[in-house]
Amino acid sequence: MTQPQTQPRTTAARAALAAQTIELPSWAFGNSGTRFKVFGQPGVPRDPYEKIADAAQVHRYTGAAPRVSLHIPWDLVDDFGALRRHAEDLGVQLGAINSNVFQDDDYMLGSLTNPDPKVRRKAVDAHLRCLEVMNETGSQDLKIWLADGLNYPGQDDLRSRQDRLAEGLAEIYAALAPHQRIILEYKFFEPAFYATDVPDWGTSLLHCMALGEQAMVVLDTGHHAPGTNIEFIVAQLLRVGRLGAFDFNSRFYADDDLMVGAADPFQLFRIMNEIVAAGALDPDSGVNFMLDQCHNIEPKIPGQIRSVMNVQEATAKALLVDRDALAAAQRSGDVLGAHGVLMDAYNTDVRSLLADLRTEQGLDPDPMVAYAASGYGERIAAERVGGAQAGWGA
Amino acid sequence: MTQPQTQPRTTAARAALAAQTIELPSWAFGNSGTRFKVFGQPGVPRDPYEKIADAAQVHRYTGAAPRVSLHIPWDLVDDFGALRRHAEDLGVQLGAINSNVFQDDDYMLGSLTNPDPKVRRKAVDAHLRCLEVMNETGSQDLKIWLADGLNYPGQDDLRSRQDRLAEGLAEIYAALAPHQRIILEYKFFEPAFYATDVPDWGTSLLHCMALGEQAMVVLDTGHHAPGTNIEFIVAQLLRVGRLGAFDFNSRFYADDDLMVGAADPFQLFRIMNEIVAAGALDPDSGVNFMLDQCHNIEPKIPGQIRSVMNVQEATAKALLVDRDALAAAQRSGDVLGAHGVLMDAYNTDVRSLLADLRTEQGLDPDPMVAYAASGYGERIAAERVGGAQAGWGA
Amino acid sequence: MTQPQTQPRTTAARAALAAQTIELPSWAFGNSGTRFKVFGQPGVPRDPYEKIADAAQVHRYTGAAPRVSLHIPWDLVDDFGALRRHAEDLGVQLGAINSNVFQDDDYMLGSLTNPDPKVRRKAVDAHLRCLEVMNETGSQDLKIWLADGLNYPGQDDLRSRQDRLAEGLAEIYAALAPHQRIILEYKFFEPAFYATDVPDWGTSLLHCMALGEQAMVVLDTGHHAPGTNIEFIVAQLLRVGRLGAFDFNSRFYADDDLMVGAADPFQLFRIMNEIVAAGALDPDSGVNFMLDQCHNIEPKIPGQIRSVMNVQEATAKALLVDRDALAAAQRSGDVLGAHGVLMDAYNTDVRSLLADLRTEQGLDPDPMVAYAASGYGERIAAERVGGAQAGWGA
Amino acid sequence: MTQPQTQPRTTAARAALAAQTIELPSWAFGNSGTRFKVFGQPGVPRDPYEKIADAAQVHRYTGAAPRVSLHIPWDLVDDFGALRRHAEDLGVQLGAINSNVFQDDDYMLGSLTNPDPKVRRKAVDAHLRCLEVMNETGSQDLKIWLADGLNYPGQDDLRSRQDRLAEGLAEIYAALAPHQRIILEYKFFEPAFYATDVPDWGTSLLHCMALGEQAMVVLDTGHHAPGTNIEFIVAQLLRVGRLGAFDFNSRFYADDDLMVGAADPFQLFRIMNEIVAAGALDPDSGVNFMLDQCHNIEPKIPGQIRSVMNVQEATAKALLVDRDALAAAQRSGDVLGAHGVLMDAYNTDVRSLLADLRTEQGLDPDPMVAYAASGYGERIAAERVGGAQAGWGA
Repeated sequence: MTQPQTQPRTTAARAALAAQTIELPSWAFGNSGTRFKVFGQPGVPRDPYEKIADAAQVHRYTGAAPRVSLHIPWDLVDDFGALRRHAEDLGVQLGAINSNVFQDDDYMLGSLTNPDPKVRRKAVDAHLRCLEVMNETGSQDLKIWLADGLNYPGQDDLRSRQDRLAEGLAEIYAALAPHQRIILEYKFFEPAFYATDVPDWGTSLLHCMALGEQAMVVLDTGHHAPGTNIEFIVAQLLRVGRLGAFDFNSRFYADDDLMVGAADPFQLFRIMNEIVAAGALDPDSGVNFMLDQCHNIEPKIPGQIRSVMNVQEATAKALLVDRDALAAAQRSGDVLGAHGVLMDAYNTDVRSLLADLRTEQGLDPDPMVAYAASGYGERIAAERVGGAQAGWGA
Repeated sequence: MTQPQTQPRTTAARAALAAQTIELPSWAFGNSGTRFKVFGQPGVPRDPYEKIADAAQVHRYTGAAPRVSLHIPWDLVDDFGALRRHAEDLGVQLGAINSNVFQDDDYMLGSLTNPDPKVRRKAVDAHLRCLEVMNETGSQDLKIWLADGLNYPGQDDLRSRQDRLAEGLAEIYAALAPHQRIILEYKFFEPAFYATDVPDWGTSLLHCMALGEQAMVVLDTGHHAPGTNIEFIVAQLLRVGRLGAFDFNSRFYADDDLMVGAADPFQLFRIMNEIVAAGALDPDSGVNFMLDQCHNIEPKIPGQIRSVMNVQEATAKALLVDRDALAAAQRSGDVLGAHGVLMDAYNTDVRSLLADLRTEQGLDPDPMVAYAASGYGERIAAERVGGAQAGWGA
Repeated sequence: MTQPQTQPRTTAARAALAAQTIELPSWAFGNSGTRFKVFGQPGVPRDPYEKIADAAQVHRYTGAAPRVSLHIPWDLVDDFGALRRHAEDLGVQLGAINSNVFQDDDYMLGSLTNPDPKVRRKAVDAHLRCLEVMNETGSQDLKIWLADGLNYPGQDDLRSRQDRLAEGLAEIYAALAPHQRIILEYKFFEPAFYATDVPDWGTSLLHCMALGEQAMVVLDTGHHAPGTNIEFIVAQLLRVGRLGAFDFNSRFYADDDLMVGAADPFQLFRIMNEIVAAGALDPDSGVNFMLDQCHNIEPKIPGQIRSVMNVQEATAKALLVDRDALAAAQRSGDVLGAHGVLMDAYNTDVRSLLADLRTEQGLDPDPMVAYAASGYGERIAAERVGGAQAGWGA
Repeated sequence: MTQPQTQPRTTAARAALAAQTIELPSWAFGNSGTRFKVFGQPGVPRDPYEKIADAAQVHRYTGAAPRVSLHIPWDLVDDFGALRRHAEDLGVQLGAINSNVFQDDDYMLGSLTNPDPKVRRKAVDAHLRCLEVMNETGSQDLKIWLADGLNYPGQDDLRSRQDRLAEGLAEIYAALAPHQRIILEYKFFEPAFYATDVPDWGTSLLHCMALGEQAMVVLDTGHHAPGTNIEFIVAQLLRVGRLGAFDFNSRFYADDDLMVGAADPFQLFRIMNEIVAAGALDPDSGVNFMLDQCHNIEPKIPGQIRSVMNVQEATAKALLVDRDALAAAQRSGDVLGAHGVLMDAYNTDVRSLLADLRTEQGLDPDPMVAYAASGYGERIAAERVGGAQAGWGA
């Protein structure tokens, strides 16, 4: 339990935490729900400008969320230059561009994998349009998550779909600028209920390797089979240099997009421990840390603030691991000792460390309280009257 | 592999199959989908009358689907007597009434378990209204499935919610007529993502026992944790006389409402085997067999026809099990022999037996082909223009 | 994050923690492993006397483990009075008696559920023998976990096995003294691989209710389907007054008997939170808290010490929950607020609180360090030479 | 339901089935069990010679099992030339060599991944010894399954273990003769309970690609997370040319090594459907089809016969799929039609087709009955008296 000489570790942790940034998803500020019901909330944004305004609030109180991912076509605007200036005026930047090829009727049986070549053409074009948006927004990452898959055995040919996918991705990849990347997400299931065309990290990695060095895997913490050891995948992708980004969220069952760290904070710590151990917290590591989650019943801005704080707390604990002691215990085969070193860090209460850091940064030590006291939530509820609230359909 | 003296079994199977009925859900004919997208289909009903017309098509070609469950308020009409006559004119009857207390904004944090007594009052009243509908439709079963639950640990008190649930159910139960039943469904998760208030058969059974003999458990085949042995639960509920109804569907992952028998036909057979072994196929057994599933990407009427056929095929195989040989092998501890007797029945191709039965009943031997040839699908696609297609929201 | 007026809660927590006891399993001190290999460890006990000596070490350093469960026939001795005195001399008591009816060749196809009445007779008699042992040891609880089940569909009749089980349990129950209890454990699967005869809490509860008020359910934290919400079951069993005991351990996958709290410390906290909220930590609540886990690769005595500490830490956090604030947030539907109250307690570092308590109790503040420094481990490794090390076979 | 022109498909199916071979595991004939108990059976082999004699019985009655895998050191003999001749005399051949580096005390914390370089050296040497055996037996495949992994977070460094693994495999690979292969198996979990060093197909594939073209992935049907779509992995590995072998078995829960096809025969059919569709049934495809399963409570030789028959039946159904109709329905987006084509083949009773084929081959049409009538089981039970029965320990 005792941790001699923790002071240097705490100092280093503080510096790393001060440099850590987490990208926010624009769609977290719109309405979301389940197939059973989407519950609207007062004050929800009606357009991308309002989404970014809300995202800027999260950064204002945490100091750690300076970028906002966009979802295209949900976040299409006439003038992305204007949107970009709007963001910068509010102190944030536009981040990754997420392609959406699952909400047009044509995509019912797939997008890049659709048996119909006309639909595949349309899906490729949608991605090329995203690349144009990226050129306008200055975004570097095209994040591709496909809803493609099958609901019934026999519905389509599993292998042909992989070939079509490879072909479509290759055409998109060819249009990348040298500083841009494709980051390819995988998901165990949903909305496809029998087979998903990019169901696991192995499939995503195979496609990335076929594409080239500007293609990287996205790991979404909610997209795995029950029991999957996610930190192992993190370690493996880092080892082969192909972890492009993280989509943070959490879940008890399937992909239910709960706030990161809410379901299994120890798992989040173990994940961040692999990140820290591999040096991947370094802003130059090429790993983009993002939230990708929804707030169905909780208020959205506080939900995002809490999520950022949860990532920070898990990161702080990972930074406090006594790596020399850990390595020594591991080398000597001391199972309980090595486990104990890790648990010592996990069991530490890092909230005051982070509060101090915020104070040092000129922020309120408690972002949740500070945001609540700001009156912003009440203000948008009062002001944003009329118009259609943003949701997954827009 | 050899099955001596199978003739008597085949004859008995034929009689049992001729008597078997499967209730259809009105909502299977409306649009449905996932949180990501609901894909509309041409010809989808705009109101309960059209839903029943479509359901009657399923009965017309299978001869085994003479009842239609309604969902309230989705299927509210001004005159249930007229709806009932409409159904009877088309050769079907109105079946169970399903209460819907999950799509009103008030129910965001629960219905019968809501911390707010006003919402609980409203939820009880919604059920009392369902009982009034039942009196008008002649329905005997009030099927209660609650979306109630929590997304986050701490969000509400697990135990208080059970107490509120018991209280609400008791008030509804007290309003039952002597020939009516509450049938209480359980579900592992979704739409609640941390805790569900009726998550398992044990919880449903405890509430039913507290209510009285007119309360029975509904087993939905898609509502269990991964790996759960469903036929065991069937056997257990039959043993204690509390299996009120079946909701058939299938799934590979979570509750995804695929066509029954599509994901694991052997499991469906094992379930029907317990039903047959316990004599619960008997129409007087008190077990109501219903479909409860959606057709997101496949056409709806053929999807229902196929599902009815899948249940019939599994039932036919279960009826062909050589129960004397099975019991003898079981008694003697002959593991492979007993297993083999069961597999012999499962491996039998029962499609011609069912085709013959249909011919005998004056039906086309192949319901899928006959429906496709009827032109009904094209007709409704052409005729049902304008108006809002029915879906989960209505 | 701020917790005003935490002082009274801390004081109450300290008192509750001082009164908390956790029963140890004698078999945790013997060798254990997987079907692939049992790795022996130096110093492992050769008989029940040595097991109890080791268990007493755990109590010596934690002050919280004053009882030892026995497994019969593994722990059969000629003179249980002598064993009892041996335990008392070492400062501990004999606890629950666990029946073992799975390691005799006769039990290959089941014990109380075996199709062969002679085997069932033998299994009932084995339990009656356990009751005799209980009378000699002063134990109050007969803990029954059955390995009974099926590996293949059709192998035996699911429902008949329930009837046989009920019959066997009834005979055992009839032999209980008024102060004795049957506590009936359930398990999702293993060693049976298709169907288990007591697979879930519902089945255990049904049998207990049929037996009478001296029959209670045992909840083993490792014995559930993936994703099962265990704290819900705890709350439900406490609500109906049938939670007889806890078997603590943890797992990432199936029942792998890792140290409690090692796989998901947040889950352990949520479980203890239900216990505390229901007042079931009270020694008079009738809930017996036990460890039931193995140490395949870690040293056994430290493994048990660590496990006791893990339960203590989770309990301490649960005791620190601000229940008034929690209830207020829950009542007002404040999802994030209520969740936050719970997380505040969980995120608290309680190790110094427990260290202080130990010092107050005259114990070393760090049991792991103190045990390691004692030289006991080295001593038994040196002394226990020759003889057969105890394991699951004895 | 109707299948016009099925005659050519049936003829082709018959030819393919006549050519299909399935390799048997020597260890299936020894005793096996769970961590709770290994139940011995009469007549179980005492040495590799007797194991091969029993395996030859399976081939004698099925005509489809002409090879036997060995496990080293379990099947070490002084003279592998003699063992080879013994096999050939009985009409079978020696197949793949399986390395066993999990039953020596040194391997408690891993073999090729062990933190201790001396243990890693020993584990590499054990594999080099296997290559020597292969040279003596004429085996082409060195099958590597490692029990390596961790039980506790922190116990060892996930990434370092991958590096050590790569290093060890490279040394073994370098010693392969040009006609030999390493085939590397993955497993989700067990006996490691927190992290497994080769847990999924992605990890196995990465190591194979790093090694070279003589390294291929082994897919064991029981080694996946719940819900994993195994046929997708089959299709993917075939697509990239890296499916080296199949380990057939089945399971309801974790890896429980039940008879292939016993738990989910539809899944086995879907798997064989991908094999057939990719032409991988061809003996020149490089895919070695093997059983890897145990018979804990059922007799072993009949258990293997039944398993071979189950694979044959699934293969026969896959061969009967009307691929033109399937492709046409898939191309046109006919979800139910395409699914229906697949199900038509699955629902066909192929037992008489296989019985006819056996008769044509001079075999008894019912291998189970023929073996039972042979008296072999009784003979070995009577003759094999004395000596130690083979099991997982030898």
